[in-house]
Amino acid sequence: MGKLSADHLIIGRSGLARALYDTVRDLPVISPHGHCDPEWFAADAPFSDPANLLIVPDHYVLRMLVSQGVRLEDMGVARRDGAPVETDPRAIWRRFAAQYHLFAGTPTRLWLDYTFETLFGLETPLGPETADATYDRIAACLAQDGFRPRALFGRFGIEVLATTEGALDPLEHHAAIRDSGWGGRVITTYRPDQVTDPEHEGFAGALDRLAEITGGETDTYAGYLEAHRVRRAQFRAHGATATDHGHPTADTADLFASDAAELYDRIRAGRAEPGDAGLFRAQMLTEMARMSAEDGMVMQIHPGSYRNHNAGVFRAFGRDKGFDVPTRTDYVTALRPLLNAVGMEPNLTVILFTLDESAYARELAPLAGAYPCLRLGPAWWFHDSPEGMRRFREMTTETAGFYNTVGFNDDTRAFPSIPARHDMARRVDCAYLAGLVDDGRLREAEAFGLARTLTVDLPRQAYRL
Amino acid sequence: MGKLSADHLIIGRSGLARALYDTVRDLPVISPHGHCDPEWFAADAPFSDPANLLIVPDHYVLRMLVSQGVRLEDMGVARRDGAPVETDPRAIWRRFAAQYHLFAGTPTRLWLDYTFETLFGLETPLGPETADATYDRIAACLAQDGFRPRALFGRFGIEVLATTEGALDPLEHHAAIRDSGWGGRVITTYRPDQVTDPEHEGFAGALDRLAEITGGETDTYAGYLEAHRVRRAQFRAHGATATDHGHPTADTADLFASDAAELYDRIRAGRAEPGDAGLFRAQMLTEMARMSAEDGMVMQIHPGSYRNHNAGVFRAFGRDKGFDVPTRTDYVTALRPLLNAVGMEPNLTVILFTLDESAYARELAPLAGAYPCLRLGPAWWFHDSPEGMRRFREMTTETAGFYNTVGFNDDTRAFPSIPARHDMARRVDCAYLAGLVDDGRLREAEAFGLARTLTVDLPRQAYRL
Amino acid sequence: MGKLSADHLIIGRSGLARALYDTVRDLPVISPHGHCDPEWFAADAPFSDPANLLIVPDHYVLRMLVSQGVRLEDMGVARRDGAPVETDPRAIWRRFAAQYHLFAGTPTRLWLDYTFETLFGLETPLGPETADATYDRIAACLAQDGFRPRALFGRFGIEVLATTEGALDPLEHHAAIRDSGWGGRVITTYRPDQVTDPEHEGFAGALDRLAEITGGETDTYAGYLEAHRVRRAQFRAHGATATDHGHPTADTADLFASDAAELYDRIRAGRAEPGDAGLFRAQMLTEMARMSAEDGMVMQIHPGSYRNHNAGVFRAFGRDKGFDVPTRTDYVTALRPLLNAVGMEPNLTVILFTLDESAYARELAPLAGAYPCLRLGPAWWFHDSPEGMRRFREMTTETAGFYNTVGFNDDTRAFPSIPARHDMARRVDCAYLAGLVDDGRLREAEAFGLARTLTVDLPRQAYRL
Repeated sequence: MGKLSADHLIIGRSGLARALYDTVRDLPVISPHGHCDPEWFAADAPFSDPANLLIVPDHYVLRMLVSQGVRLEDMGVARRDGAPVETDPRAIWRRFAAQYHLFAGTPTRLWLDYTFETLFGLETPLGPETADATYDRIAACLAQDGFRPRALFGRFGIEVLATTEGALDPLEHHAAIRDSGWGGRVITTYRPDQVTDPEHEGFAGALDRLAEITGGETDTYAGYLEAHRVRRAQFRAHGATATDHGHPTADTADLFASDAAELYDRIRAGRAEPGDAGLFRAQMLTEMARMSAEDGMVMQIHPGSYRNHNAGVFRAFGRDKGFDVPTRTDYVTALRPLLNAVGMEPNLTVILFTLDESAYARELAPLAGAYPCLRLGPAWWFHDSPEGMRRFREMTTETAGFYNTVGFNDDTRAFPSIPARHDMARRVDCAYLAGLVDDGRLREAEAFGLARTLTVDLPRQAYRL
Repeated sequence: MGKLSADHLIIGRSGLARALYDTVRDLPVISPHGHCDPEWFAADAPFSDPANLLIVPDHYVLRMLVSQGVRLEDMGVARRDGAPVETDPRAIWRRFAAQYHLFAGTPTRLWLDYTFETLFGLETPLGPETADATYDRIAACLAQDGFRPRALFGRFGIEVLATTEGALDPLEHHAAIRDSGWGGRVITTYRPDQVTDPEHEGFAGALDRLAEITGGETDTYAGYLEAHRVRRAQFRAHGATATDHGHPTADTADLFASDAAELYDRIRAGRAEPGDAGLFRAQMLTEMARMSAEDGMVMQIHPGSYRNHNAGVFRAFGRDKGFDVPTRTDYVTALRPLLNAVGMEPNLTVILFTLDESAYARELAPLAGAYPCLRLGPAWWFHDSPEGMRRFREMTTETAGFYNTVGFNDDTRAFPSIPARHDMARRVDCAYLAGLVDDGRLREAEAFGLARTLTVDLPRQAYRL
Repeated sequence: MGKLSADHLIIGRSGLARALYDTVRDLPVISPHGHCDPEWFAADAPFSDPANLLIVPDHYVLRMLVSQGVRLEDMGVARRDGAPVETDPRAIWRRFAAQYHLFAGTPTRLWLDYTFETLFGLETPLGPETADATYDRIAACLAQDGFRPRALFGRFGIEVLATTEGALDPLEHHAAIRDSGWGGRVITTYRPDQVTDPEHEGFAGALDRLAEITGGETDTYAGYLEAHRVRRAQFRAHGATATDHGHPTADTADLFASDAAELYDRIRAGRAEPGDAGLFRAQMLTEMARMSAEDGMVMQIHPGSYRNHNAGVFRAFGRDKGFDVPTRTDYVTALRPLLNAVGMEPNLTVILFTLDESAYARELAPLAGAYPCLRLGPAWWFHDSPEGMRRFREMTTETAGFYNTVGFNDDTRAFPSIPARHDMARRVDCAYLAGLVDDGRLREAEAFGLARTLTVDLPRQAYRL
């Protein structure tokens, strides 16, 4: 690295952390959870421009700008009502550059500086004066074949990249990738929230559609569950090894079959009572866990985000615009029904994530350090940062150890930042391991083994890749 | 510094942290939130004695002594029933000195040692043997003109000092300061809890008094709101740029106007139902935010203290005797009504404080890193300490950045300790910034800029000073 | 230390932390809270074998193995239904050794390595290849007289060891120890959960038995309370200086006497209503505190564990098999009834523990830093670890100081690990104190005094030993 990205970033200026990092920095990138668009790899078209690649879709970037008074319209974010927004990518880029100082101390800044330097060869810090030159350089790169999606996939050393698709997705891009003969492994993930959450917009229509695309029916609970089984198999045929569930809470339920069927009937008939939606989501987590114990798909639970907190921004711009906010999340009581139903199943893996760090040492490490099905997902979202990852290790390792964790997820739709994100995670882990050795709590040889284990072995094993 | 205060306090023994600190240590003190008595600066009379200046009014000191069996009566704290308490300041001082070891590891100890040495020229640690000599030296200082309030104000390099007054305060000391021709800037802050909290002692009488002093009426909700507007303008005429709200929770509400008026009518008529008091406080936070969006006063919300937890101490001695205890505090759900009402208003600034550190990374940084009206107040009360301030930066910066914070508040009624408190905050910030540079996460030039920004620019901007 | 245990463990490679540690490493072990079996010291029989001494009874070990798919049956844990389980201690040991890598980064690993090396003279890391040699060496040691319980008690430098017995325990082993003429001080602790928790298995029968062994009656609330007083006195006659209370929450209540009596009558008659069990537990904490204010027994409250979370494991194997999970715990509201009843009593000491670290800085330090009866127990259970103990000091010292804490508890039934556990606690405290000195926050002479205070003075004082 050169002038933008500090060579000693996180691992410090000498010694063991550096040595550990040197053994893992060039290992393959395993990305078992993320939000890249599979069409990129199906079509392999060039990315359009710097702003639409790096700024407009990044909710980390948008939220910080908005917090300091920038309007989403001025950053090119489309309005639902079709009212005009900025369309000039260079104007968007200039506005971003003028506010780049806001990101001091944030992971966004580290990811972008690393990407600017390592991918685009920039050596001058971004700022108002360098906005145009930076834009031109990145745009020129994007015009080259070597910066098309598949080329970057290769250059980034990606062994496998999982995307995430809804239960109704036609999966045509994954089919196209598979049929294209290209060697890159891009797999899907089954994310059925749209058909498991009665409060999701268009839930009833989604159930109709689910029946159609599975060739079955969703009028009965039995038919509905069978439709899930069919879709899961279809996703597996497109490479999926995992499912993903983003619920407001970690609540689970294990109703008697007849009660579950009646609950479904009420909801399906539009006669849901207060509490039914939450109870149905809870029941569906357990049903999904049961199916995972049967079909071997790894189950990921991502609870605890208060989605669309800002009603005005949601009305004007829709989802995922930076106004999802973490909330306090209980796991111990919430997960008990699921765990008592299938927690000891030998074929089941459930990976838990949290936005509530107070649960790491208190709830998640004790649970994952006892139930054989449980593993801890890495520091997530707002906590995908040097301090966040450090706290994750400090608050989980002593109780859950390393082997109940699953390595890193980049969880990103910002494809060019994938190397930066994995690099940061490797640095934090190596710094943590080196600290244990310095502290007399780990032998040096173990640290070298664990650095590799955390980087490649655990994600491969946990996600069955 | 010399023998009591370690020269390397917090910033360590060499290097960048020291260099950063050297650039900010002598910058002006900006104190936008605190509890000094404005009469001190109006009358400019000498402080009476060491004990009544430094010990008797300091709830940090009293609580620690009580926790180890000292009686409040023996520390000169007046009883509500008029029963005799210790009146000899030297006896109080000796008792304090005999227990000074209890404060090892606490910020009280650092503040006092700094004050003893820097202000009073003491070089011998306080303890039973040095109690009298220390007392005599401080008393001798206080007798000098150079230790009167206005002289200290100048010596401390205070640019502006905000005090806090209730909604019914006559503000005569601020008027006297303004009319005195003295150049010190001492401003008030509007703290209306007494007239927004139906559970406050004497609420009904307070509303009558509010009507009188605003020349309006508080029989109707409209009149009541107008009375607030009038009082806010009167406070602004005495320098206020901010309001302050100390509620048990961060709950806000945004009722229909007719419902809010009916709620007020019930409460005003003494017919409040269960839940009405809390709902009214919640509604008033939103009303205050609306007024702030109009009149430009910065709104501070200080929630989460269980006041007067010890019923016996409250009965015997009254408020603020060290038995206010933090509680778990939700912000995400609680603030949503206010934020959805006025959260995108360009003229609004709402500064949030917390006593619940688990909310820093989970709730407060994500909220302040998205809503343009929100800023994070500094580590507050029990967390106004080296570790507390460090945790604040570590848990907020990665998500909210530096620019959604507002610099330091000393929040104190212990006037002589103001330099010590600001010095500690500057040290912690410089140590944190230096750590980021050492870690490759910030460029050195940025760190120098941010040290100054955190010390003077952000408080001036955030509080509109 | 030699090859297994790092000499610089936690305290680092040089300097003040080492110097502090050197002054406390050989001080007597004071163990005021733990779960050793008093029969060991009454009978002084040799320990049977390595597996049944070190592996089978250790829920920290079992839970980690189970979390990675090992079956409890294969680790020799007896089933309630009497179905066969592994009985060969060497086979159990080999399975453990094969999984020893799972414990990297956990305190279990540090305790065991220390014990292997310091007590059994092993210098080769445990692993599949060294399983048999390690087993043989430990087994050979256990056959020697110098490894019998009383000999180890002496070799470990134990000044006092408290065990924990239920309210119905005959205390015959403590009587035997006392009558044996042996000089070791092994004392009991009164743990009445079985007769204060109406939801405990066999509660009604336990009350009958309580009446029998106290020679009184438990048909009335007055008789029931008197039975407690009698039993407390009997426990004191067997050395007890403390009581211990493990409740699901920290809830306390202070009912009118008639309401409490009616509550008891309902429960005793099997007519308990919803909420009665929790209310009775809450009331009993306050009653126990009242008795402590009278008889001087130190009261310990250990709340916040969700016991037997895994219903299947509980059915098959019973309690304490690694599936107790911490939960979020409120102290501020919960303890108020007790504290308002007796919180200012001069003869009362109540020691609070938590599994919810978010309560340290927010609730526990502020409470203990104000109420004279309160002290903070050390980092407990999952937090009895280097990081856990560090967080305890960092989050409590600035508000509660050192003198509102009580030193270390080993809280263990793993007798051979007692020196390892106390050694770790001393190292963490010394590292913390040295950090304060390095940071200019404590004078070096104070650090030496505090190292000793934390190690021996505070436990002796707090537990009245």
